[in-house]
Amino acid sequence: RYFQFCKLPGRVMGIRLLRFTSVVIIVLLLVAGALTALLPNIKDDKMPNLRREPKTQSQSALDSFTLIMQTYNRTDLLLKLLNHYQAIPHLHKVIVVWNNIGDKIPEEMWNSLGPHPVPVVFKVQTVNRMRNRLQNFPELETKAVLMMDDDTLVSAHDLAFAFSVWQQFPEHIVGFVPRKHISTPSGVYSYGSFELQNPAFGNGDQYSMVLIGAAFFHSGYLEDFQRQPEAVYALIDETQNCDDIAMNFLVAKHTGKPSGVFVKPVDIRNLEKDTNSGYSGMWHRAEHLLQRSYCVNKLVNIYDGMPLKYSNIMISQFGFPNYANHKNKM
Amino acid sequence: RYFQFCKLPGRVMGIRLLRFTSVVIIVLLLVAGALTALLPNIKDDKMPNLRREPKTQSQSALDSFTLIMQTYNRTDLLLKLLNHYQAIPHLHKVIVVWNNIGDKIPEEMWNSLGPHPVPVVFKVQTVNRMRNRLQNFPELETKAVLMMDDDTLVSAHDLAFAFSVWQQFPEHIVGFVPRKHISTPSGVYSYGSFELQNPAFGNGDQYSMVLIGAAFFHSGYLEDFQRQPEAVYALIDETQNCDDIAMNFLVAKHTGKPSGVFVKPVDIRNLEKDTNSGYSGMWHRAEHLLQRSYCVNKLVNIYDGMPLKYSNIMISQFGFPNYANHKNKM
Repeated sequence: RYFQFCKLPGRVMGIRLLRFTSVVIIVLLLVAGALTALLPNIKDDKMPNLRREPKTQSQSALDSFTLIMQTYNRTDLLLKLLNHYQAIPHLHKVIVVWNNIGDKIPEEMWNSLGPHPVPVVFKVQTVNRMRNRLQNFPELETKAVLMMDDDTLVSAHDLAFAFSVWQQFPEHIVGFVPRKHISTPSGVYSYGSFELQNPAFGNGDQYSMVLIGAAFFHSGYLEDFQRQPEAVYALIDETQNCDDIAMNFLVAKHTGKPSGVFVKPVDIRNLEKDTNSGYSGMWHRAEHLLQRSYCVNKLVNIYDGMPLKYSNIMISQFGFPNYANHKNKM
Repeated sequence: RYFQFCKLPGRVMGIRLLRFTSVVIIVLLLVAGALTALLPNIKDDKMPNLRREPKTQSQSALDSFTLIMQTYNRTDLLLKLLNHYQAIPHLHKVIVVWNNIGDKIPEEMWNSLGPHPVPVVFKVQTVNRMRNRLQNFPELETKAVLMMDDDTLVSAHDLAFAFSVWQQFPEHIVGFVPRKHISTPSGVYSYGSFELQNPAFGNGDQYSMVLIGAAFFHSGYLEDFQRQPEAVYALIDETQNCDDIAMNFLVAKHTGKPSGVFVKPVDIRNLEKDTNSGYSGMWHRAEHLLQRSYCVNKLVNIYDGMPLKYSNIMISQFGFPNYANHKNKM
């Protein structure tokens, strides 16, 4: 075909070709001009973390987090907390894990009180399980998850800071509640907090877990959680407890490092006394702590070893609430 | 030869072969048994950081640090501080940079008061320069350097903890004195501390430098410092100041991250009022802070850009001095 074209008189071809190439060049120049105009204005001394830039979809996934909050029998607290949490900076979406089996979700009321800063999804569950919150929800779009208990209030300042810390330690559980295990001469482990003896080295205390009821962690760990041995799910279902201990085992095993990074909260409150439901949370059960020690030992069997590692790093926000928190007497 | 051997009667060969293989098997079994007996006893729950193991030469280099302390006109403070610092855990050696030009080092007195926990080397200088302490001393064997001003007392607990933090952040300057630069609309930078405005994002304060007069850093940076532009040395010599700011520029440029990690000291003291010499340190000069702002701007020219980055991470030791430092009101 091309050769047939070439049979046309050369002069006519020449003019058509000239017109064609001229049009192409002009179009390219216009496109180039448009692109140049759209280039961002980069200055040398611009601070990192350009938080005021308009967010594209891909930036959102990296620069924001999804709140996952499981709720049972404390809808009044849930709604109170949602008013606060829905407005946290860098929040992408809220996933409410609805463990009130058979009860209608408050979706109508929620919508009637809109508009809301972010989408809130109510995931209706079929069985009231502690580990329901550890599903790999399809609605989850961000790399980061913020998991909160439905009776815990953490200030926006604390959350914004802890999120920035998570971004620097994305493979760790970055949160506000540190716990530890200790080893005893019999080889049996115990679970606890500051009241237990310090692990046997250095001075000060150590922690080996950060509880997920008030923490940021990578959404990839929810994927990993779906691939745990059946015995782990059985243990969590049997105790209706210990999902957070299991997550710490998972993360520690995955990284070979301490699972958590503890961020000292400035303002964290437990609101359970404020509920009208009279329901006061699993940790009030008499056997709660004993169960958790039991879980540690069972998980060591399941994982064929103790993967948890100790850390004594406590992170606070420099100069917040005020500079006195770092000004020294020198 | 082998084939010739084979020509011997088969039965005789068979017995010799049998004996030979029996001996070989017995020897192998004995060797295997000996090896098994020598295997270390590995327990699953053994804590990381096996600090009580006997140290080999290579372990020392990684698991200990060298104190470099420059001194001028405050020998009484130097000796007081050496009594303390020579006994810090994980200290490998002390290098005293002797800026008292023409004065004899107190070596005789030092030796007469031996034995000492670690070797102390006095490096006699020919010119009294601030940057003398940033030489790549041949006596330096460890990966980590602890640099201290000769009037600063930091507790052993703080130093042991900060060293463990440095081991987790070996490419950063891990220390006790945070400072920052700020940008002004004119493009001119200012140097300061909490008294300056907070950099323009988020809440709370930020720091962009950790001063080397009370900090751990990687000895490799002393090597790198020898390869800086001449203008950097000229600046430090001209001001007899700013060597620490230059080091922060070097580290920030090298890592592309904030140069320092601030560890909040529990007990840090400035002893300069305790000296008999009456000498009170460079930072009392009227122009000290203005000089440091000047240095920041000069270094930006020399480095053709501002490499310093902000951080608001403040690290403290979990549960030290007591658990109250993390116990929350929940």
